[in-house]
Amino acid sequence: VPLPEKRLIEQIARQALQVQASRSKGVLARKGGCTFRVAALLAGIGDDCTVLRLPSARDILITTDFSLEGVHFRREWHPPESVGHRCLARGLSDIAAMGGEPVAAFLSLALPASSSQRWVGRFVRGLLALSKRFSVPLAGGDIAESNSGVLADIVVLGLVPPGRAVLRSGARPGDRIYVTGKLGASALAFSGLLNGAKLLPRDYLSHFYPTPRITVGRVLREKGIPSAMIDISDGLSTDLHHICEQSGVGARIYADRIPVTGGAKNLKFALHGGEDYELIFTAPARKHVPRTITGAPVTQLGEITGTRRVSLVKDGHESVLKSAGWEHFRKP
Amino acid sequence: VPLPEKRLIEQIARQALQVQASRSKGVLARKGGCTFRVAALLAGIGDDCTVLRLPSARDILITTDFSLEGVHFRREWHPPESVGHRCLARGLSDIAAMGGEPVAAFLSLALPASSSQRWVGRFVRGLLALSKRFSVPLAGGDIAESNSGVLADIVVLGLVPPGRAVLRSGARPGDRIYVTGKLGASALAFSGLLNGAKLLPRDYLSHFYPTPRITVGRVLREKGIPSAMIDISDGLSTDLHHICEQSGVGARIYADRIPVTGGAKNLKFALHGGEDYELIFTAPARKHVPRTITGAPVTQLGEITGTRRVSLVKDGHESVLKSAGWEHFRKP
Repeated sequence: VPLPEKRLIEQIARQALQVQASRSKGVLARKGGCTFRVAALLAGIGDDCTVLRLPSARDILITTDFSLEGVHFRREWHPPESVGHRCLARGLSDIAAMGGEPVAAFLSLALPASSSQRWVGRFVRGLLALSKRFSVPLAGGDIAESNSGVLADIVVLGLVPPGRAVLRSGARPGDRIYVTGKLGASALAFSGLLNGAKLLPRDYLSHFYPTPRITVGRVLREKGIPSAMIDISDGLSTDLHHICEQSGVGARIYADRIPVTGGAKNLKFALHGGEDYELIFTAPARKHVPRTITGAPVTQLGEITGTRRVSLVKDGHESVLKSAGWEHFRKP
Repeated sequence: VPLPEKRLIEQIARQALQVQASRSKGVLARKGGCTFRVAALLAGIGDDCTVLRLPSARDILITTDFSLEGVHFRREWHPPESVGHRCLARGLSDIAAMGGEPVAAFLSLALPASSSQRWVGRFVRGLLALSKRFSVPLAGGDIAESNSGVLADIVVLGLVPPGRAVLRSGARPGDRIYVTGKLGASALAFSGLLNGAKLLPRDYLSHFYPTPRITVGRVLREKGIPSAMIDISDGLSTDLHHICEQSGVGARIYADRIPVTGGAKNLKFALHGGEDYELIFTAPARKHVPRTITGAPVTQLGEITGTRRVSLVKDGHESVLKSAGWEHFRKP
């Protein structure tokens, strides 16, 4: 590895990150109508640790998510801005799924010595554009050299009032199951890419630039609606299983109620396609659930049962719905 | 990739981690003689995020560090327990360098489909042994598949009283420069490995099982001694430069004062060898600095100057000390 080049990469990445860190000292965020001090960034990139001062009387949420070249993205398919955007979106979506407010992000980034300055700059730009949209400063991280493609790990820290985080484990028999938005769009694009299609990112925003459901998650939590919640990262079938496992319950959903992108012929994408970053939540039958929340459609898919089985009702037949998101779509 | 195998790996890793998570619910830690509730772990591995309740009126420290196969370790050189130990030690050492108290760790781990159950189990065991020693529960993370070796990213969260984190930026001209322990042992072992030597880990503990200086860092901060502090991860020469850059000062150190493992012939290992995980700190001349702190020797190496130059005095000659840790030793 020619060292000047290696140094250069570190420098590019550090510079891009440093700008952001210095901008976010004592950040004031405006969110959902009220302005409050989410976090004072006391030391950012350039010290051993980031130092944050957070408002007291909040529970802290933390999530970490890998974005690995060849596993979660391909450089020949995904523009660098999309890779950066998706990297942060994964973390933000986990905060949304707890009903939390994201306050800071941290990025570990390993780059091959052959990385171009241009690629890294565009990656960081994509990540920072999303970070700005949600007022989540990039507050620290690590830079390393990679022997094998671009490797990123995003950490997002969020806040939630004490005891109010919406867990996966709260679903009870009789609860209704809901989903936000439409499903399958990301997998549909992905399937096109796999088949060699050239896709324009602007035509497939759900895949290239998904929007984490931060506001919807927070509003649902504030209204006290969900008994359990999860984001769809692995696919509806798999993520619904996660709720059932953690809650010790079963579920029954109806194929004709699933909001499928492009209609019924795409049902398998909606059932098993991952990375939709919509929210699945459950709520007691007595709770009023609006049809839209901050502009996002909310659809009732079925109900939680007392069995340990997850099933799909289609054309009048009920059959076991396997957790199959992983097999079909996890590996690009 | 045969799926059952892929699943198996996820399962191994999740199980190993889950045990730890369930053990650490509402963890009570005993540290430095006083028992206090560091963090209640409200939801751990198995939900979208980890939920932590931390004591109020503390600043939060966060650090992330990659451990990448072929970059930070080699499977043919490092036993899996050592890889796990070093992975967490890197993060803990950053918390030590701020004078902080570590409270929770998070691990993103990507494994090749070919990983053996045995290797992963031993890796996790090594990591958890260190986590137990410092009462830092492994509280969450991510598991992914890797196309290219074992990839780990450790996140450590720590606490420090408000405004008391010891930054790199506080060194002032006239301050004395100190270092804990002895230097060069890790690089000495590493140099042996590079030259094909078979080393027994128990004979080279500083390299295979380094101890982060958590207690020393905390005691120094409590006594109000350091004006600036950093841990030696990249090498004395490089990390001293980091303090100087962040503080806008220079430094002069004396070769004959450096506590070199194995004596003067190993000076280059002590100067430029990374991963010693000792602490460099500066303190005003008027401060009394004990010769040992909680058993660790403390040596005065030189002083901070008003120039922007870092220099080494050796055999009566003063010359520029380049930041050369990276070139010689960063890449195993």
